Amino acid sequence: MYIHAVSHYLPTQVVGNEHFTQLNGLSSDWIIERTGIVERRKAAPGENTNTMTLDVIRLLEPKADLSTVDLIVGATYTPYDTIVSLAHEAQHSLGIADIPVVSISTACSSLLNAIEVVEGYFALNKATRALVIVSEHNTAYNNDQDKISGHLWGDGAAALLITKERQSEGDFAIKALLTGGAAHTSKATTAVMMKPMEGGVTMPHGRDVFINACQYMPKASLQVLERCGLTLADVDYILPHQANLRISRNVMHTLDLPEEKLISNIQYLGNTGCAGCAIALSEQWDMFEKGQRIVVTVFGGGYSYGAMLIEV
Amino acid sequence: MYIHAVSHYLPTQVVGNEHFTQLNGLSSDWIIERTGIVERRKAAPGENTNTMTLDVIRLLEPKADLSTVDLIVGATYTPYDTIVSLAHEAQHSLGIADIPVVSISTACSSLLNAIEVVEGYFALNKATRALVIVSEHNTAYNNDQDKISGHLWGDGAAALLITKERQSEGDFAIKALLTGGAAHTSKATTAVMMKPMEGGVTMPHGRDVFINACQYMPKASLQVLERCGLTLADVDYILPHQANLRISRNVMHTLDLPEEKLISNIQYLGNTGCAGCAIALSEQWDMFEKGQRIVVTVFGGGYSYGAMLIEV
Repeated sequence: MYIHAVSHYLPTQVVGNEHFTQLNGLSSDWIIERTGIVERRKAAPGENTNTMTLDVIRLLEPKADLSTVDLIVGATYTPYDTIVSLAHEAQHSLGIADIPVVSISTACSSLLNAIEVVEGYFALNKATRALVIVSEHNTAYNNDQDKISGHLWGDGAAALLITKERQSEGDFAIKALLTGGAAHTSKATTAVMMKPMEGGVTMPHGRDVFINACQYMPKASLQVLERCGLTLADVDYILPHQANLRISRNVMHTLDLPEEKLISNIQYLGNTGCAGCAIALSEQWDMFEKGQRIVVTVFGGGYSYGAMLIEV
Repeated sequence: MYIHAVSHYLPTQVVGNEHFTQLNGLSSDWIIERTGIVERRKAAPGENTNTMTLDVIRLLEPKADLSTVDLIVGATYTPYDTIVSLAHEAQHSLGIADIPVVSISTACSSLLNAIEVVEGYFALNKATRALVIVSEHNTAYNNDQDKISGHLWGDGAAALLITKERQSEGDFAIKALLTGGAAHTSKATTAVMMKPMEGGVTMPHGRDVFINACQYMPKASLQVLERCGLTLADVDYILPHQANLRISRNVMHTLDLPEEKLISNIQYLGNTGCAGCAIALSEQWDMFEKGQRIVVTVFGGGYSYGAMLIEV
């Protein structure tokens, strides 16, 4: 399968670290040292995961024919509407009748869960052109005052047109993809949570998330390379889940790869949940050169993880 | 693929129609005439979609070996936790490492979306034994005072072990499954909504939901039969999404089938969302006879729909 085109949308409001300094006394230097985050985007009143879905579709339309999409898979853990999901909103906007529409909610790993669902539909011959949309409105569920995790989150969305067959020379090939879950570990279900009816996001065990993210993303990256008969020497870029710059650097250190091979947008976007890697892919799309290989690897709350090897 | 075993869990508290009569003046006769609902279950304080997940796993364990599950797909539109999804909770409870874990949130059609996702993993040879869990805590997001939809909702959950190959003579075969979406229609994104940050469920256009449900469930049922070279004469039972008894009867009327062939639990459970059909399948499991065929058909908010043919 192939990524034919990608788009992303970012809300215009920029929230700098000084916002949190004023609220709860965390200094910008402390936030940068601990997370790498300098600023993040915040959705405007009236914006949400469904409106950002419409934005990324509008931005994808000039790059790809969306009229023949035959599967829509959406993903978010910060839903505006859990009944009219963002995948439904996308179908409504495109006006395409009778195609399968699925929404995923597997926290920060959802981009790869969504693409694996697409892979399944392709294998079943139930679809050939899938629109994948990842959209997060973290600030809707966030408590800015929270000194532990209030400063981490940002909003944003991305859309990918994924096709079973190559559509053009510029397509990126998905050579392999795997997902897994580490929810069997002791703190997986209590480390980071987002309970809509109980005040939103909390992160009582950030250190456990950190440790497991640093362990599972390198492991999954090596596994996906192994499935393709490749090694780290064949990889040009690592694009890890954008949760914390220290985690990303730790992943590179574990893989013994230089930081020049790290793709990161958390510095100016914060943790944009399952949208982060897709936004980065869209931001960097024109920078990649033919033949380059990118490993996208994710790890999130609930401790599901995954890795995908892309060849430009 | 095959359904090897099913379990269901219902909270103990029964809420009769008189609860709503006291709150907002709707008479029990009026509720029964309009919806068929006499009573519904309500989760106790401390119960939620994740605790009900643990309950259905506990109830499934005596019926099936869950230690070799290699895929978990959860579904809900009434999440307790959008990060630690009920699929993560299930993996944590079972203690199985490294398997794919996916949560679906495609409103009332999610049972069939979830099973179609399983079908994809089976086609990819990425799984052979899938645990599907559907769990709804509607009363957490419901406004009991709401005269339009406050009286419709109930809580409950079900679990299914679905295997690629037949495990035993008693397995039910899934002969065909399809899903689709009708979100292209004008009111699909505004008819029934559940916005966690804006007060929960609302149903401004119940009549439009009714009309489309009555149209799409018969259509999908006929399509799934056609794919198997069968007709309605080959069907023993229709199990429609449990949204409203009038919709279910309308579906039977459209298909020109007698009401004896209708499976329904809405009278005593209310609308239990994506769990309704799976609960009914579990309730009736021992009643089915070898060779019988059941069409499960769903339609929900956001207007996604589907149908599945089961052969006992």
